Amino acid sequence: MSATALQQATPQKQGFDLSAYLQRSSQIVERTLDQLLPSLKTKPKRIHEAMRYSLFAGGKRIRPALCLAAAEACGGNWKSALPAACAVECIHTYSLIHDDLPAMDNDDFRRGKPTNHKVFGEGIAVLAGDALLTQSFELIAQTKPTSRYKVSQQVLELAKASGSLQLIAGQVVDLQSEGKPISIKELRYIHERKTSALLCCSARLGGMSANCTPSQLKALTDFGYHVGLAFQVIDDILDITQTSDQLGKTAGKDQAAQKATYPSILGLTKSRRIAKQLTAKAFLALKPFRNKAIALESLADFLLNREC
Amino acid sequence: MSATALQQATPQKQGFDLSAYLQRSSQIVERTLDQLLPSLKTKPKRIHEAMRYSLFAGGKRIRPALCLAAAEACGGNWKSALPAACAVECIHTYSLIHDDLPAMDNDDFRRGKPTNHKVFGEGIAVLAGDALLTQSFELIAQTKPTSRYKVSQQVLELAKASGSLQLIAGQVVDLQSEGKPISIKELRYIHERKTSALLCCSARLGGMSANCTPSQLKALTDFGYHVGLAFQVIDDILDITQTSDQLGKTAGKDQAAQKATYPSILGLTKSRRIAKQLTAKAFLALKPFRNKAIALESLADFLLNREC
Repeated sequence: MSATALQQATPQKQGFDLSAYLQRSSQIVERTLDQLLPSLKTKPKRIHEAMRYSLFAGGKRIRPALCLAAAEACGGNWKSALPAACAVECIHTYSLIHDDLPAMDNDDFRRGKPTNHKVFGEGIAVLAGDALLTQSFELIAQTKPTSRYKVSQQVLELAKASGSLQLIAGQVVDLQSEGKPISIKELRYIHERKTSALLCCSARLGGMSANCTPSQLKALTDFGYHVGLAFQVIDDILDITQTSDQLGKTAGKDQAAQKATYPSILGLTKSRRIAKQLTAKAFLALKPFRNKAIALESLADFLLNREC
Repeated sequence: MSATALQQATPQKQGFDLSAYLQRSSQIVERTLDQLLPSLKTKPKRIHEAMRYSLFAGGKRIRPALCLAAAEACGGNWKSALPAACAVECIHTYSLIHDDLPAMDNDDFRRGKPTNHKVFGEGIAVLAGDALLTQSFELIAQTKPTSRYKVSQQVLELAKASGSLQLIAGQVVDLQSEGKPISIKELRYIHERKTSALLCCSARLGGMSANCTPSQLKALTDFGYHVGLAFQVIDDILDITQTSDQLGKTAGKDQAAQKATYPSILGLTKSRRIAKQLTAKAFLALKPFRNKAIALESLADFLLNREC
């Protein structure tokens, strides 16, 4: 893959081909992860099989795409954002493996395949999640510093977004809220942490790798926050409106687990309206980037209108 | 606590008071961890209760002590090694929480108290481990670079020692070996990774924070490796010779789980001899530090002769 801009390699503006963009960015990220992670032959084989089973299970690679696109929006080269893009995908995959465990959401299917613990057993699934979480810091440590951002700031960014006040906080409160009536404010607290935090961090790390200005970083933060929240509202909606086959994971889980969701509290129509409003706010945040944010804009639009 | 040298504050050489040294270093590390980790009142309270429950359960704080003592052996100030000392303790605690889970070693007691999942449930225990692992990278990112070592190298050091080729590899092979006859070579592979890797990393991070020379770093690596291996051989021995009360955790677990150990393969006498030989090699590695390594030397001696 040459170092040409990812988004300029696809037709501009109205004809922007997001699907081609996502395909290219996924390929790049998957190839890099494949090169940087221990191979299937590396001892102990079982843990590397388990890590790779979930990491290469065909996810949409939204977080890495956000990261690469944010770097380009700031005038940077996507190559500089590659370690961060791989790191956020490792964090995302680890969180799915652990969330799916019987002691948590107890899910049997993910991305259309049996979940990690169903294939490798619970012990190895816990360790595969641990290993991917650890791997993500090995990856982010390999990023390059810029004149504005040290590597330590990028490590801190990733650790904070994934830590007990953000990503893990979201899962904890989600776990504690099952079967209990919660307010929309509390639900938003969960969604902000379980989903927005890492999406926001993905965009910010992309910007940092491109040595973005403080105002660009703020814009990416606003964008990531709103896109992340919209993403989760849509997720809540799809859990009701789609089948398990369409989702690649068990549909109707939220209702079955008596989990509060946007549609369960506000209804489908209002939830859809909120997702649109959040996406509109995300668009607004991109204004300062002008036409350089075409990929980010298309991504937000795609996430709003996706069907799985 | 003033910035005076930890080891000079206690009587020198023959009369070196390791117990006072360990008490002081533990106090410093615990106070720092208490200040840097989210408080018990921080939302979500449950996860911070769980993290702190295991982190402040009265461990011996061997790894942080090694880290601080290594910094002093290299002529540095222990204060510079404090973020790394806290980080390795978080890694150690996370690994204990996850290892104790029913899907792994299924332990009910640790440090004389019910294990994390016994108190908080399995879901929260998995997340508390995840949070401490993540926290350790937040801590190491706050270390200071020196002229020889960037922060990114220290992050990488910690990630590699904790990753799927070291700490996690040890646990994986340990898990897979239960009830199977394994060779002494294979057992050494497990011990090197499950125990030596993090002890070695603790000493190396201490050295790095003191801007140690490459030959000092090599000496600390040799020292940490041999001390770590001796530590685990002694652990195997204590599991047989001590009671649960003495250990603060279930004794005789290895035999009950048909786990291969040094004594089960080589017998008690030979195992004791090996532990002594390993400690002698650790002492030898300290030669270049002369009398600056008094704390490290005493620590190695203490670990060899401990009874719990």
